[in-house]
Amino acid sequence: MRIALDAMGTDNNPTPDVIGGLLASQERPDVKLVLIGDQRRIEAAAQAQSGGLGKIEVIHADIAVDMHDKPSEVIKGKPGSSMHVGLKLLEDNAVDAFVTMGNTGAAHAIATLHAPRRIRGVKRPALSGIFSVEGRPKIFLDIGANSDCKADWLAQFAVMGSVYASSVLGYASPRVCLLSNGEEEGKGNDLVRETAKLLKRSSLNYVGNAEPKEIFMKDVADVIVSDGFSGNLLMKTFEATTRYLSSTIRTEIKAGLLSSIGGLLIKGSMNRVKGLFDTSTVGGAPLLGVQGVVIIGHGSSTEIGVKNAVHQAVKAVEGQAVSKMTQQLAQFVTES
Amino acid sequence: MRIALDAMGTDNNPTPDVIGGLLASQERPDVKLVLIGDQRRIEAAAQAQSGGLGKIEVIHADIAVDMHDKPSEVIKGKPGSSMHVGLKLLEDNAVDAFVTMGNTGAAHAIATLHAPRRIRGVKRPALSGIFSVEGRPKIFLDIGANSDCKADWLAQFAVMGSVYASSVLGYASPRVCLLSNGEEEGKGNDLVRETAKLLKRSSLNYVGNAEPKEIFMKDVADVIVSDGFSGNLLMKTFEATTRYLSSTIRTEIKAGLLSSIGGLLIKGSMNRVKGLFDTSTVGGAPLLGVQGVVIIGHGSSTEIGVKNAVHQAVKAVEGQAVSKMTQQLAQFVTES
Repeated sequence: MRIALDAMGTDNNPTPDVIGGLLASQERPDVKLVLIGDQRRIEAAAQAQSGGLGKIEVIHADIAVDMHDKPSEVIKGKPGSSMHVGLKLLEDNAVDAFVTMGNTGAAHAIATLHAPRRIRGVKRPALSGIFSVEGRPKIFLDIGANSDCKADWLAQFAVMGSVYASSVLGYASPRVCLLSNGEEEGKGNDLVRETAKLLKRSSLNYVGNAEPKEIFMKDVADVIVSDGFSGNLLMKTFEATTRYLSSTIRTEIKAGLLSSIGGLLIKGSMNRVKGLFDTSTVGGAPLLGVQGVVIIGHGSSTEIGVKNAVHQAVKAVEGQAVSKMTQQLAQFVTES
Repeated sequence: MRIALDAMGTDNNPTPDVIGGLLASQERPDVKLVLIGDQRRIEAAAQAQSGGLGKIEVIHADIAVDMHDKPSEVIKGKPGSSMHVGLKLLEDNAVDAFVTMGNTGAAHAIATLHAPRRIRGVKRPALSGIFSVEGRPKIFLDIGANSDCKADWLAQFAVMGSVYASSVLGYASPRVCLLSNGEEEGKGNDLVRETAKLLKRSSLNYVGNAEPKEIFMKDVADVIVSDGFSGNLLMKTFEATTRYLSSTIRTEIKAGLLSSIGGLLIKGSMNRVKGLFDTSTVGGAPLLGVQGVVIIGHGSSTEIGVKNAVHQAVKAVEGQAVSKMTQQLAQFVTES
């Protein structure tokens, strides 16, 4: 298996990207890694932090996509970017997966419009997020690629998420739910109600609506489907709230002497909580609906996040997620 | 000033409602309170917890709206409910405000369709929430009344929120923002972009988009406008996340001996944090767009929440929020 890793993805590129790649490579020496980006800087980063690149291949790309670049401008304006190069390798079957921590919108746009393009019949590729509740991983999509969605797009997201959950996350019959503002049938907006109709008559294991408290606190479903605007708001609200609450707690604890001592005593516990909420344990999640495994992670990722994103790509390739998705989507189109 | 308080609103009615009313009445003896609900149970609750009702009036209502009642069924099926009675008093100018901790959907439906009905020209009344960032109160609407919205409805929400912020929360020129998944112009869904155009050419102090991290952590705006589906998801995600994170921290701290001791030492700090996130400090927020002050609070409210909801009603009446809103809306319709 060959995996292309964008070396220019993280906010602090290329060090976390390169070191993360080296770590993944040490843990899975059977996987051939290809780093894509500025060759001189990649080699320097590997030399500074580790004993060099070893047998990891480098493909040089002059240009890096910046976090603030507009997707539409990257498509045409930066044709030689590390993202373009990596996704082209994927299209040409020179690699089995592409992993990046870079500009999500740009990766989505290049993968959709340039290479490897959409799976036949897919209306819109969707961006997913993976997180665990009670130790069970969930896939949540769309978390930001499509702000305005139609019901049949959401139904396809459900199929794609379900295939990923069965082929990669290991569920025999993944439970699919729709994100809504109430669990009762009939709650939600027009889009939710419309999509519910489509899912009910599909062969998916559709279990109804779920509201935020169920999604984060209960093991009610394995696949959570949403339009990209609501999904993105939900993820951002979750992140903002945990950060806000944590910093408020820290400030209050540091305000007094006794509580500061208490703060030292609970440090281990707080670090474990931090670990539970740490996105680097998953590292990255798939862009679903394109003709190949594309894993996108957070720009703020550490080398551990990058390493785990590479592992996620390996699992997706091993699970044959894309070919199974292609089959299921074709069947779904025929059924509906 | 006379204020009608639904005594059958909270999940544990009538005790928190009645005691909350008594507390509010003690703090503002100039405000005449009218409790509405089951007279026998109201008197018993007052007797058991306090020295009786004193000079608080009671208007008997046989029926209470249940939290699980469907709004559409309450409208016709429970015409004698405490909500119907209270809102009719408001319509008849027998009271200056109506306060309830009961079924939000039902209160919204009765107020909109039965009494006191909409302010002339209002497309849809909106449910608001009030919370503070850096000690400054913000009004956020719609947080759940209208799941599918149009841009001109959101523009009206902006006007109504802005008037409430200036007349009740005390801002000279309230900053209005739109909830979005990115702060940059052009981010958001079609509805956000469409509404932004309307707000830009209005006389409101429109400051652009705000994403969740800004809404909760920074003092970027005084009025946050959203469709009811996204607004409801945001509030529910905030609540679910704080509850989830708090319970995770508690479990981790209790898992070890040293950390349990640490937990005791930080108890005061944690209680202060709890206070900051406690919705009972506001108690309730207005349903905006109907012809009268209607304050709705959470069913889980304690007597302190109820008391503060009554105080919110007093402030809204004193600020002449509804008459100012009526004027501003008429002007807004002419302008646009």
